[in-house]
Amino acid sequence: MANIREIAKRAGISIATVSRHLNNTGYVSEDAREKIQKVVDELNYTPNALARAMFTKNSKTIGLMVPNISNPFFNQMASVIEEYAKNKGYTLFLCNTDDDKEKEKTYLEVLQSHRVAGIIASRSQCEDEYANIDIPVVAFENHILDNIITISSDNYNGGRMAFDHLYEKGCRKILHIKGPEVFEATELRYKGFLDGARAKDLEIDFIEFQHDFQVKMLEEDINSMKDIVNYDGIFVFNDIAAATVMRALKKRGVSIPQEVQIIGFDNSFIGELLYPSLTTINQPIEALAYTIIELLIKIINGEGVLIEDYIMEVKLIERETTISLKDLDPASI
Amino acid sequence: MANIREIAKRAGISIATVSRHLNNTGYVSEDAREKIQKVVDELNYTPNALARAMFTKNSKTIGLMVPNISNPFFNQMASVIEEYAKNKGYTLFLCNTDDDKEKEKTYLEVLQSHRVAGIIASRSQCEDEYANIDIPVVAFENHILDNIITISSDNYNGGRMAFDHLYEKGCRKILHIKGPEVFEATELRYKGFLDGARAKDLEIDFIEFQHDFQVKMLEEDINSMKDIVNYDGIFVFNDIAAATVMRALKKRGVSIPQEVQIIGFDNSFIGELLYPSLTTINQPIEALAYTIIELLIKIINGEGVLIEDYIMEVKLIERETTISLKDLDPASI
Repeated sequence: MANIREIAKRAGISIATVSRHLNNTGYVSEDAREKIQKVVDELNYTPNALARAMFTKNSKTIGLMVPNISNPFFNQMASVIEEYAKNKGYTLFLCNTDDDKEKEKTYLEVLQSHRVAGIIASRSQCEDEYANIDIPVVAFENHILDNIITISSDNYNGGRMAFDHLYEKGCRKILHIKGPEVFEATELRYKGFLDGARAKDLEIDFIEFQHDFQVKMLEEDINSMKDIVNYDGIFVFNDIAAATVMRALKKRGVSIPQEVQIIGFDNSFIGELLYPSLTTINQPIEALAYTIIELLIKIINGEGVLIEDYIMEVKLIERETTISLKDLDPASI
Repeated sequence: MANIREIAKRAGISIATVSRHLNNTGYVSEDAREKIQKVVDELNYTPNALARAMFTKNSKTIGLMVPNISNPFFNQMASVIEEYAKNKGYTLFLCNTDDDKEKEKTYLEVLQSHRVAGIIASRSQCEDEYANIDIPVVAFENHILDNIITISSDNYNGGRMAFDHLYEKGCRKILHIKGPEVFEATELRYKGFLDGARAKDLEIDFIEFQHDFQVKMLEEDINSMKDIVNYDGIFVFNDIAAATVMRALKKRGVSIPQEVQIIGFDNSFIGELLYPSLTTINQPIEALAYTIIELLIKIINGEGVLIEDYIMEVKLIERETTISLKDLDPASI
């Protein structure tokens, strides 16, 4: 395979100049550029970006740790982050950690050894593992270390909005299906929801899912959902989990929203495909993705950024799974 | 940062032996292993997998090109492929090509420069770009070059099954919503469906979607679906596209399956979340993923494989979007 030495020789240009041109690290005359490019084209030379990255410390690749690629929310986040990264000249390696600490550690090692320019750690379950690496990192949802920026939606307020909405719609026997304790975002939704209920002096029940949505959930009956028919309102920690809950309720012949109202969280595309369509709390995917990429690339470029929590506003999206009691057709109950 | 030379010195072991141990490329005595590992632990040494890959020609990383990560089928495929790869000691970089040739080319260059051990090219739209690379490649769905193995489901027979099923259920005014022409798999489904109709001397209509499912499809009304209400049976080229079609029909007040029966393709998880749940053709994701990984790793290891098409059996999954006319409750029409 052709190398930089051979290109320099054939073009009659110094190695240093060829390197400056290929790595875009300094001035090269128009004449030299043309001569080098001609040889590069002749030799069908693919610059070894890795070797180049080792010298320039900039591989133009970002590693995105996704906790669960089957969850349409993270799926949409990945697509939008990829789009913003591409606009900045970066390509993205998606690493599906499956909310598994060991997998995340492995990917962290692999990304380090591949010398990516930066890492976006979503819902990380590692801490110390990030302490000793010299690659810029930003965190989404779960905090990692004091010196790492965390970006998230305002999950606490989203949880409160979810409660207030069910309460306004007349629900008084309310269940919250919460996410695993290790998910900071869904814990905050839970706290916001609980505080909403306390403000109204209402007792609510809780069930905890042990995982984010997994396809295998669809194959087995969800044990913890046995007594789910006793409620008139349910807040599920995310949209795709809400979809599986709706499926279980329909199988039991429960009418939504006539017998039980449902609200999810995320505003991922699944909510609109469901029937009835899902009321939910919108996470501002565009703003989240934009902020994540802007901050990460500033850090990569050595620009100053404020180390703090970047929290984005959420809002209620009202669809068909919630309904005012007065709008209910008595014949349909 | 510690390097192999320093480890050898501290452990009092030859560099060659340390290398054999770290790269797992030959015999190292138990005693030497222990000494090396002790130093590795002391120095908190992260082997530079990239540098290692350059020597051993095996980075233990596979690049998976996914044409559309928002399509639950490719999503599930990616998860299962990752699982099998992990069992073989490989980690996976997911590259979302978005069915965009330029993005695929960029990723191909990035994967090359990162010296991945192998590449899985799903629904590739490149050809010559794969001719000059020295990394093992297997193709899923779209063929690339004569010397590259292609794995796929039996899409032609799946298309025939879809027609035969709608026909048996009594549909006679049938529409097929087909995928873009550049997707070999959905073209074969179309051909199989068409041949099924010809065998019954039935004329059918066609609409072509310009893309696989995109979230933005949900935001805009699908123009080509204006006259969709005139049919009693529709075969949609994949499940997630079928979900968007069902959504459009429901918005127009069309009853499924009473007025129009629907069949999708893939048996991805979306079909079970929909209401009514979607009749579809199952692609054997486990068998596909297993075959892809087995063949790719054989090629990586220099073992002989037969260069041919590996085609996996499909089957009909009957759910609620299709129904025998005799089972229809006349009151519900």
